[in-house]
Formats: sequence, C-alpha cells, structure tokens
Amino acid sequence: MTGDLDNLRVVLVATRNPLNIGAAARAMSNFGVGRLRVVNPYEAAFREARSAVGAAGLLAKAEQCASVAEAVADCRLVVGTTAAGRRELQHRLLRLEQGARAIKRHLKAGPVALLFGSERVGLSNREMSHCHWVMRIPTREEHGSMNLGQAVAVCLYELARGQKTAPAKTAPGQKEKKCTTSREVERLTQTLLEVLRSSGYVKPRTVAAEERLRRLVRRMELNCDDAAVLLGMLRQIAWKLGAKE
Amino acid sequence: MTGDLDNLRVVLVATRNPLNIGAAARAMSNFGVGRLRVVNPYEAAFREARSAVGAAGLLAKAEQCASVAEAVADCRLVVGTTAAGRRELQHRLLRLEQGARAIKRHLKAGPVALLFGSERVGLSNREMSHCHWVMRIPTREEHGSMNLGQAVAVCLYELARGQKTAPAKTAPGQKEKKCTTSREVERLTQTLLEVLRSSGYVKPRTVAAEERLRRLVRRMELNCDDAAVLLGMLRQIAWKLGAKE
Repeated sequence: MTGDLDNLRVVLVATRNPLNIGAAARAMSNFGVGRLRVVNPYEAAFREARSAVGAAGLLAKAEQCASVAEAVADCRLVVGTTAAGRRELQHRLLRLEQGARAIKRHLKAGPVALLFGSERVGLSNREMSHCHWVMRIPTREEHGSMNLGQAVAVCLYELARGQKTAPAKTAPGQKEKKCTTSREVERLTQTLLEVLRSSGYVKPRTVAAEERLRRLVRRMELNCDDAAVLLGMLRQIAWKLGAKE
Repeated sequence: MTGDLDNLRVVLVATRNPLNIGAAARAMSNFGVGRLRVVNPYEAAFREARSAVGAAGLLAKAEQCASVAEAVADCRLVVGTTAAGRRELQHRLLRLEQGARAIKRHLKAGPVALLFGSERVGLSNREMSHCHWVMRIPTREEHGSMNLGQAVAVCLYELARGQKTAPAKTAPGQKEKKCTTSREVERLTQTLLEVLRSSGYVKPRTVAAEERLRRLVRRMELNCDDAAVLLGMLRQIAWKLGAKE
C-alpha cells in the first residue's frame, strides 16, 4: 500500500478542530500515508489531536510549520483542495479523479503536497497561491462543502485506489458457481420432488411439475456446500413426513 | 448527481456517537443521498446529531427502526460493510470498487440498503446475516478500521464517482437477480426455519442456525417468481407437518 504514497505530504492549514486533525491522521494511517504537516494550527487543537485512533505515532511525527511556503518547500507539485463554492478561483480546477491521476504520476518522481484549508473558509487566496492547481471532490453544488476529515479520507482513498492491496479473502460459503455437479443438483431436485409429493404440493406423476422444479433448482446456482446442506434438510423433512404417514 | 442514488438507503446500526451520525448525514447530503435509517442508535446520540452542518433536513427525515430486518424490508439488495480484520467472515467479500459497480446496477432497479455497524465492533454476525454480501474499503491491513463518518463518505464517493459513464445493459435472457425484497426473502427464511424445526432438523431457539439459514437463502439470489413458488411449497410442507403432529 505504501510505495509512491511515501512521497505524499498532507498539509493542514489553520485547522481549528482537534477532532479534524485526528480524523485526517487516522485516514492517512488507513491508506498508508505517513507524512503530516500542519501550518498554524490552533495550538490547543494540535495538542488535543495527539490521541487519534491508531494514528498516535503519525501525529507524534507530524511537522509544525510557520507558513505554507515552509510546508511545501521540498515538494515538486503542490495541489490545493476546494469546495469551489461562491469564490472566484484563480487556478485551474480539476475533479478529484483527474487530479489524482496527475498526482500519482508526480509521486513517482518526488514529493507532492496536498493542501487542505481551515474548516470555516478553506484555503485563502494567499495560501492557494502556493499551489500549481486545485482539486475538487465532485459533491453536489447545493451542498459542496465537506467535513475536513471526510474530505481528507476521500482524497486519500482516490489516490490509493486501484493500488494492489491484500487480496480479498474468500469467505466460506462464498458463491462459487458451478462447483456443484449436475448429479448433485439432480439428487436435490428428486428429493425436493419427493417431499413435495409427500406433502401434497405436487400430485403424483406430474411431469410438468418435475421439469419446472428442475429449472428452479438450477436457477439457484448453488455452491456444493449449500447444495449438501439443502439435501440434508430435505432428507430430514422427507423422513419426518414419511414417519407420520 | 441524484438519479439512481435516490434508491440508496444508508443504514446505521447501533451507532453510539452523535458526531458520527451527523458526519454520515453530511456526507450523504454532499453526495446527494437522501434516505437515512438508524437501527437502535443510542437515543442521545440520535437526538444530538440533529444539527450536522447542512444536513438538518436529512436528519429530521431519518427513519428510526427497531431492527435490521425492518430497516431493509423494502430493499432488493442488502450490502454490509466491514473492516474485515480478525473476524472470520461468513459472507462473500468484495472490494469497494467491485461492490460499488454491483450496487450501481441494482440501484437502477430498486432500493438498495448499505449497512454500517457500530463504531466499536462493526456489524455483528446476526446483523450481517441480513446481507447478500459484504464490502470492504481497501485500507492497510495493519490499520484497517476507519472512522464511521469517513467510511460512509468514501463509500458514497465511490458510488457517486464517474456517474456519467454509460450504464451496463442487461443481456437478454440473463438471470434477473434480486427482484425480491428483503421482506419476502425474510418471510421465506422464517417459513423454512419453521419447517426445519417441525421436522426436527433444527432444535428450537438455535440462533446460530437461524443466521446460517438467513445467509444461505440470500446466497440463492432468488427472483420474485421463484421466491413466491418456494414460499408456497414451504407453507404446504409446514401445514402437512403440523397437521400430522
């Protein structure tokens, strides 16, 4: 999961709420981004944030910078984020998807800074002037402004998206199609037919019913475990119905 | 941005922290998802959440449900979310990207529920047994568990992502899955359980058996005609078993 994302620096500018710094750090840890820089945070906010779930180490290593210029000094590409609401933008604006593609290319070559502004007003024009271009999460126009921690999570998700992570494990009982042989499916069909006759649902020797049943059982596309379990159920039901006759 | 997402229901199960309910609601509003259902929230959490930035209307309309079954009753597809850490999963597990593709197809046809479990333990096996399958955000294995509000934001972002792409068409003759609502599938599950108890296959009040059965029935992905036929069969069998006692 790490790799190129080692080159990413998440820069939080003038963040006020410790919960948001903590949430940003947690999302960074979730997606394998280790380098956090904070510019002029409210001092108390930064201190209180140091306990975010699973991200204490990352917060302890976070660098405090006095200015945006200092925070982005070693970066080859600087990208701002914005809700792009009322304000007139001076920058090229990309959707997150496009922007993330460009950032990924640059991450192969060297450090990239991704800037998030304060909760109330976002990045100021002055702060944004350090950016090469600006990126926007495609939210609704009527309610574009995201919570800071959520915006960080979504941006990092998109940057990590499509990377090779640990493969999804196969759960037991997972639908493995066609692992069941026709012999087993037919045995199930016949046992069901027997039960349906014993219960009076199907009249004896009705060929059409048998064919309908055969198609129905095959549409279920059972895996072999499920087929075996169902056969066991039907046998018990058949036995009980028979025992009571 | 809306369109198919009108059919999505976000279901928060046993959420403890009002900030998380508020954050989930805000992300929903950001991405144009309007229908929130909460199952057994801590009462205070639900009350306090009603002030989330820009999402007050959405929270006021949120539906409170007494059970997962009630919250998903009208849905054709029910998808759980998990950090898939230590716990052994009983369900098919998809990465968010794959899962979102499948959900988008189903949203064209009818309501889909997306479940998020409690902050501490996620979805229990019992809660998860109502799901057709389960989805995971591809976080690092070493720190897989995301903050609830951030997880909701990332999932909804992925569902809203690239909405302008052409829809996948259904091939003629292709199996039309999930025209059945959860209410109907659950009725089938309960009737099967009744039959299995009458026949002695399942001992009375075995909870694990009920969960296994619920998962098994959902793996069949029955269409509504087949579900109705099977229910008719089971009712006849149940009647016969009862009549003979």
